[in-house]
Amino acid sequence: MTQAPQSPSLHESDGIFTAAVRHARRVAVLASVESLLGWDEQTMMPPAGGPHRADQAAELAMLVHRERTSVEQGDRLRALAAGPIASRGSVEEQATIRLLLDEHEKQSRMPPRLVEELARVGVEAQQAWVRARRESSWAVLEPWLTRTFALKREQAACRSPGLDAYDALLDDYEPGCRWRELTGLFGALRESLVPFARACLASSVRPDDRFLVEGRFPVEAQRRFVAGVARGIGFDFARGRLDTTEHPFCTSLGPDDCRITTRWCERSLPTALFGVLHEAGHGLYEQGLRREWYGLPPGEATSLGIHESQSRLWENLVGRSLPFWRWCLPLAREAFPEALRGIAAERMADALAAVRPSFIRVEADEVTYNLHVMLRFDLERAVVEGDLAVGDLPAAWNERFERDFGMRPPDDARGVLQDIHWSAGLVGYFPTYTLGNVCAAQFMAAARRALPDLDADMAGGRFLPLLEWLRREVHAAGRTLESGPLVERVTGSAVSAESLMESLRERYGPPHGI
Amino acid sequence: MTQAPQSPSLHESDGIFTAAVRHARRVAVLASVESLLGWDEQTMMPPAGGPHRADQAAELAMLVHRERTSVEQGDRLRALAAGPIASRGSVEEQATIRLLLDEHEKQSRMPPRLVEELARVGVEAQQAWVRARRESSWAVLEPWLTRTFALKREQAACRSPGLDAYDALLDDYEPGCRWRELTGLFGALRESLVPFARACLASSVRPDDRFLVEGRFPVEAQRRFVAGVARGIGFDFARGRLDTTEHPFCTSLGPDDCRITTRWCERSLPTALFGVLHEAGHGLYEQGLRREWYGLPPGEATSLGIHESQSRLWENLVGRSLPFWRWCLPLAREAFPEALRGIAAERMADALAAVRPSFIRVEADEVTYNLHVMLRFDLERAVVEGDLAVGDLPAAWNERFERDFGMRPPDDARGVLQDIHWSAGLVGYFPTYTLGNVCAAQFMAAARRALPDLDADMAGGRFLPLLEWLRREVHAAGRTLESGPLVERVTGSAVSAESLMESLRERYGPPHGI
Repeated sequence: MTQAPQSPSLHESDGIFTAAVRHARRVAVLASVESLLGWDEQTMMPPAGGPHRADQAAELAMLVHRERTSVEQGDRLRALAAGPIASRGSVEEQATIRLLLDEHEKQSRMPPRLVEELARVGVEAQQAWVRARRESSWAVLEPWLTRTFALKREQAACRSPGLDAYDALLDDYEPGCRWRELTGLFGALRESLVPFARACLASSVRPDDRFLVEGRFPVEAQRRFVAGVARGIGFDFARGRLDTTEHPFCTSLGPDDCRITTRWCERSLPTALFGVLHEAGHGLYEQGLRREWYGLPPGEATSLGIHESQSRLWENLVGRSLPFWRWCLPLAREAFPEALRGIAAERMADALAAVRPSFIRVEADEVTYNLHVMLRFDLERAVVEGDLAVGDLPAAWNERFERDFGMRPPDDARGVLQDIHWSAGLVGYFPTYTLGNVCAAQFMAAARRALPDLDADMAGGRFLPLLEWLRREVHAAGRTLESGPLVERVTGSAVSAESLMESLRERYGPPHGI
Repeated sequence: MTQAPQSPSLHESDGIFTAAVRHARRVAVLASVESLLGWDEQTMMPPAGGPHRADQAAELAMLVHRERTSVEQGDRLRALAAGPIASRGSVEEQATIRLLLDEHEKQSRMPPRLVEELARVGVEAQQAWVRARRESSWAVLEPWLTRTFALKREQAACRSPGLDAYDALLDDYEPGCRWRELTGLFGALRESLVPFARACLASSVRPDDRFLVEGRFPVEAQRRFVAGVARGIGFDFARGRLDTTEHPFCTSLGPDDCRITTRWCERSLPTALFGVLHEAGHGLYEQGLRREWYGLPPGEATSLGIHESQSRLWENLVGRSLPFWRWCLPLAREAFPEALRGIAAERMADALAAVRPSFIRVEADEVTYNLHVMLRFDLERAVVEGDLAVGDLPAAWNERFERDFGMRPPDDARGVLQDIHWSAGLVGYFPTYTLGNVCAAQFMAAARRALPDLDADMAGGRFLPLLEWLRREVHAAGRTLESGPLVERVTGSAVSAESLMESLRERYGPPHGI
């Protein structure tokens, strides 16, 4: 058998593959230091530390970029793409070559100056955001957002010149996904969701959840309780930790170092509890990735949508279910004997199904939540595509909010300033939240079919069968598949809003007399 | 005026100087990320995170080393050393050129493999140390120490081939200092200290400090109290923070991000209080360095001995003084009303002068402390110079300890395993502790001469005059001077043990009837 001179033999390819993998892993280790900079910034850094942190982030981003665009690595990846492993290797090996090369090419189209500026502005604009939100002052944030959106447009043009600007950004979070598809999916969801949400909001039957959101839940007791719940569903604290922050998140600093965060509200138990169930869901995904592929595409999350499907599955489809509360309620009553006196599991599950309009996305109930997301999706796309000026965002936000929710944000802190994403440079990220809800419902329906004892197991505090099913079916895939094909393989159906609507109707209809 | 062709003109030199400074600052920013890795490892990292942290530290150390040995930077520094700024520039500019070039040459003699191994073994051996100390098992640590000492010998030979191995290591912590000088200084100190310590220990008159070390001081109350004390003496929490750790330390992550740590003991107030005064003393030095020189020698600590002089000055010469307790006691009694009921400032200062033999250096009183240090200095020097095998350290430790303290450590956890330093690769570091005590006493005597109202100010909670004097006289020097010339400039005398012995006799003699 003869080969073109540029195509390496299998034996040569093996050596090149090993070298390429070693390089990619080294870069992943360096990039994981960036995660530590970010985590520390959000949880620990003293107030005056910001400017130097921006310097650190920018320096490290440039170094990581330099490594990612290494000419030798590019040569290796191109040789591999032309060689036998790329077509005849394992699924993992093929994905590794394809995706490392794709990322190498995208990174190589980014000028170092842009990489540095994105990293620096990412830190500085977030600090402006903290102040803007505290003072409810759009003027504080506007210049930063103007700069951020300009940088993101430039990034889109560099990284993926063949795509619409918004698709180029979206593709970084949800590989292969295009805004036109999302518009179709979201449109179908909206058609059923808007009337259902209106019916819930208008109903005279309403679950009474005042004991949950107007109680007294001492923060120290919450801390112990929610850590116990996270441990109970399988989060491994030998490989992770839980801290306090302004805007909860989950981040991995390494294969055995996953950190989740939350905020606390003494009057309201759900704030921290569902925040932690959500972040622990992300954490279970991170802890479930295949460690032998750490730093390579098969050991990375499929997409943010799939990531979010895991957080929402544990937060909502497990955490708000009656079986879950059969297990959890005794723990909760032990932690908060006074606030939860006389509350039964049924009453708790019912209270957790209360639908009420909220200005704040992260406090929204599961029914209205996706309306918050769609608003952001439409606005950020309009800005990126040049149809809306950054300066017009507050007015556009308030107008759309009033249309969807029938009320107007009283100030920008409860409107356009509420989320950290845009100031952190996360543009094209929001739609993955709703995509995650959609996929979560499809996964949970498939899990129910595969695990007939699921409810009984959960009621007994046995979450391992579900977790193991998710690890096997979802987590292990890593980036060997994109989200669409993964959902199809796991559930037998294409991505669709049906399971989500069914699940919402089933769980939120009856408590509202619908 | 003509110049040799290799010597740049002043105008050319200015441009080169600017470029060299920019490069050095960038490297300092990267190196400050290493400090974050270290801080997080000691305070926050989940138990299983260690191996990946070692990978991160090794990767970053190699990158920092690559930058420090950049050929272009070497060319710039050599050109500058031959040019006009090196001889006619400001003191700061001259020090910058001289010390950056010196460091560049030392780094360039280190093979990257050694840099990586030192970083990796530094993390891994520390984790072995934690286990070894917990289990009091020398066997767990021995192989790691054998490897560490071998690496340190190799480092010494590479970095400073013209020096004795031990002097080469010492020089990294105390530039310009040689072990023969230290042997002289320590010998003189030993001559007065050993009989004085014996007299204190043998005295039938003993301060009663049981209320302080066998009391009940709830950790939450301690946390608030010691943070208040640190703030009171001038530690700026907008530019720093305080956390919990196993082995207290202070580290700077940037010019406005200085982190101190402590451990807590509910029975004993001094553990955390003097730990925090000590680390805050380090922190005040870090916060007092000239920020316009951040990342360059004039903005760096003179030496570890000078650093330690600042921590010991605040811990002992301020924190154990009667004037300090006139200010601090009301705060302490508010925090611990029961444990400190009826205790007056005089009684407190007296109790804090109790001398008792201790197996543990960090718990030792001020009088016996330096005997702990000298033991380590002599042993580590013997190992580095090849006169003592690592395997013989425990026996040598116990024998020397018995000779100096009249008692034998009951186990290795309270003997050779107690300190983190050797496992962290900090060999040649211990003697700077005693050097720090010596300098602290000299500085405090000079401060008293310069500030006649010092005692009244401290009693009134006004620590700023002392802090400003230290900033001006000591902190601002940075590395423009070595420690010996700095002490001479500030105090008018060479480094000598006299002030320390005077100060110990004055403060510890009377409470022991001497």
